[in-house]
Amino acid sequence: MSIARKILLVVLDGVSDRPINGKTPLLMAKKPNLDSMASLGINGIMDPIAPGIRPGSDVAHLALLGYDPYKVYTGRGPIEAAGVGIHLKKGDVAFRCNFATRKDGIVIDRRAERISDTTELSKAIQEGVKLDTEFIFKRSTGHRAAMALRGDGLSSHVTASDPKHEGEPVRRVDALGPEAERTANLLNEFIEQAEKVLEDHPINIERKRSGKLPANTILIRGAGTVQKTETFSEKYGLKGAVIAATGLIIGIGKMYGLDYIETKGATGSVDSDVSAKVKNAINALNDHDFVLLNIKGADESGHDGLIEKKTQFIGKVDKALEPITCLKDTLVVVTADHSTPIAVRNHSADPVPVMIKGPGIRVDDVRTYDEISAATGGLNRIRSMDLMPILMDLIDHTKKFGE
Amino acid sequence: MSIARKILLVVLDGVSDRPINGKTPLLMAKKPNLDSMASLGINGIMDPIAPGIRPGSDVAHLALLGYDPYKVYTGRGPIEAAGVGIHLKKGDVAFRCNFATRKDGIVIDRRAERISDTTELSKAIQEGVKLDTEFIFKRSTGHRAAMALRGDGLSSHVTASDPKHEGEPVRRVDALGPEAERTANLLNEFIEQAEKVLEDHPINIERKRSGKLPANTILIRGAGTVQKTETFSEKYGLKGAVIAATGLIIGIGKMYGLDYIETKGATGSVDSDVSAKVKNAINALNDHDFVLLNIKGADESGHDGLIEKKTQFIGKVDKALEPITCLKDTLVVVTADHSTPIAVRNHSADPVPVMIKGPGIRVDDVRTYDEISAATGGLNRIRSMDLMPILMDLIDHTKKFGE
Repeated sequence: MSIARKILLVVLDGVSDRPINGKTPLLMAKKPNLDSMASLGINGIMDPIAPGIRPGSDVAHLALLGYDPYKVYTGRGPIEAAGVGIHLKKGDVAFRCNFATRKDGIVIDRRAERISDTTELSKAIQEGVKLDTEFIFKRSTGHRAAMALRGDGLSSHVTASDPKHEGEPVRRVDALGPEAERTANLLNEFIEQAEKVLEDHPINIERKRSGKLPANTILIRGAGTVQKTETFSEKYGLKGAVIAATGLIIGIGKMYGLDYIETKGATGSVDSDVSAKVKNAINALNDHDFVLLNIKGADESGHDGLIEKKTQFIGKVDKALEPITCLKDTLVVVTADHSTPIAVRNHSADPVPVMIKGPGIRVDDVRTYDEISAATGGLNRIRSMDLMPILMDLIDHTKKFGE
Repeated sequence: MSIARKILLVVLDGVSDRPINGKTPLLMAKKPNLDSMASLGINGIMDPIAPGIRPGSDVAHLALLGYDPYKVYTGRGPIEAAGVGIHLKKGDVAFRCNFATRKDGIVIDRRAERISDTTELSKAIQEGVKLDTEFIFKRSTGHRAAMALRGDGLSSHVTASDPKHEGEPVRRVDALGPEAERTANLLNEFIEQAEKVLEDHPINIERKRSGKLPANTILIRGAGTVQKTETFSEKYGLKGAVIAATGLIIGIGKMYGLDYIETKGATGSVDSDVSAKVKNAINALNDHDFVLLNIKGADESGHDGLIEKKTQFIGKVDKALEPITCLKDTLVVVTADHSTPIAVRNHSADPVPVMIKGPGIRVDDVRTYDEISAATGGLNRIRSMDLMPILMDLIDHTKKFGE
């Protein structure tokens, strides 16, 4: 077949780096499968947003999916809310929440001792809190939760109640403009009522009895307005799936209507069962046109500044990717959402390597998969927002502009 | 002389391709002149519009001439109308037309058996149809024609009457919004009156008598509003000419005030007398600063999916281009408007090779003219809209921004 019909987008989260003693982790790692795909594909470097713009994983993934983050991104809340299964409507304002422990007005544990099951507490909040507008509160994994306010006259221009550091008082939610006063009042009211519900809840009484910290307050942050945007299938006419371990990427996928395919053993860390995720991705291609496979471990090692751990994880990923080298009729893309350089211990704006392999590709002379070689490849320098249009054209799925 | 003064822009229409068994037609063809020019020039790849945007020949040529198609392109009609010599005014709405055969309300031949001379029929329509606004109807080659409506309150937001497929009824023209209702009514009135004029015209009576299909209806499509845009000489201060075989390219040239220089034997197909066009182009440089030379045959072979025909045509073009290799004081650009890959049989968004040769050029290491080598060249990756500004600067004809 001379035109590919399906797309597998492999995102090696944060794998891209800067050299230390002349070598990046990608340059040091043993990675025969990545190198072989680079040899058989077209390569290039890609700015996650634009040169010099340091991206979060959220906006970086929006751009990879072809959604302009400057247009669709207003905050992390809607992504987290979609991730926990809240069906958002246009105009909703959504937030990330933490179950936390407060004592004498001071946050003493932002995660309530990493409380693991908040099912009952979340139910009690949804049932016990009465606001002057509709709200949906849902638990996520661990101490995490998300909330959406629904109704007229809401705004995301509010401050967070989360002080971000322990030992500081819970902040009042403040309006950043007169249009947000109602929302700020609703949130302060929500927190006050939620604290009453939590204080006397049997689970917290039991926690205190057994010497554990109670989950007696809710910290709120990441306010974002829900925009009316096309789903992935509306935008591209493709049926898509997402395979990822972290709630953020799963949330982005769900927000745009990608099917989330769970993988046992996927942890989002270097101990993740990457082979299981790869197997799942290949299976998902049977009944999907597009699969986003996010592999997170390298990002974590970058944040931790651990060069050997990052290099070893790349080797592990490379082994797990072997079955992908045999895919036919599928465009295989291997790239990163952003760089997470060991020396920076955070995301950076450095461009990431990008490789596309499959039918009809103009194969270039690049022979290894790394940041330096990629810059000599046939794609030259593109932006993440360019990627989906390029792939859509390669699978012959674009409309002509003009005649 | 170390600064070029003139520009020859050679557009090998649709020549750019994707590899089949590792080779594109450009990689397979014997093309010593193109390769020699690539060796002496600077090379790169060029997105016709932007990465992943699949262009029509019309918008692709607008971009090559430095006109932003997103601003100036509203439809094909104005280009066709300019091509047949209608002097368009701002606010005109123009259309492509076909003489066609209709029977019992069904289009049985969209080209009226490729009727060859419609001079008399066109005259009869211009004289016989009376509308509540001014209109200009002009024949083109074969069954083709163009029309412009002129007056207040016109809009291009109307559907086509052309069903695009034979065996389907002629469509009523519908307004796509209330602002276009008058235009839709005028067009339906035009079609009704034109059919009356055509039905009893002696030419059609004679056609029927001799067993031929009558040209008894006019199909309308490609509505576009005429914008007020600078001519080529207003925009660049250069006197320009266009050499092309197809009405579309000639129309674009005329629309922007390029002198159209006709070439005998230019067919727009692989049998075209390319040498005659090249000779004409070189002559035109004597009294023009800029010449656009469009050579169409490769595009046709791409649409037909004929790899050998496309490869052979490239060889033929290469021979014909030999006199161009000797030009002095002239920037020679060889590029394509878009790719027309054999495997796609249609335009694609793949970037095209672009080569600039002449005085002052930063010659790179590229030694052959093809899609893969071009990507390693000194121009890196640009867009067609960048080309004219780059050329204008190379002939020292740009204004300084700042001091």
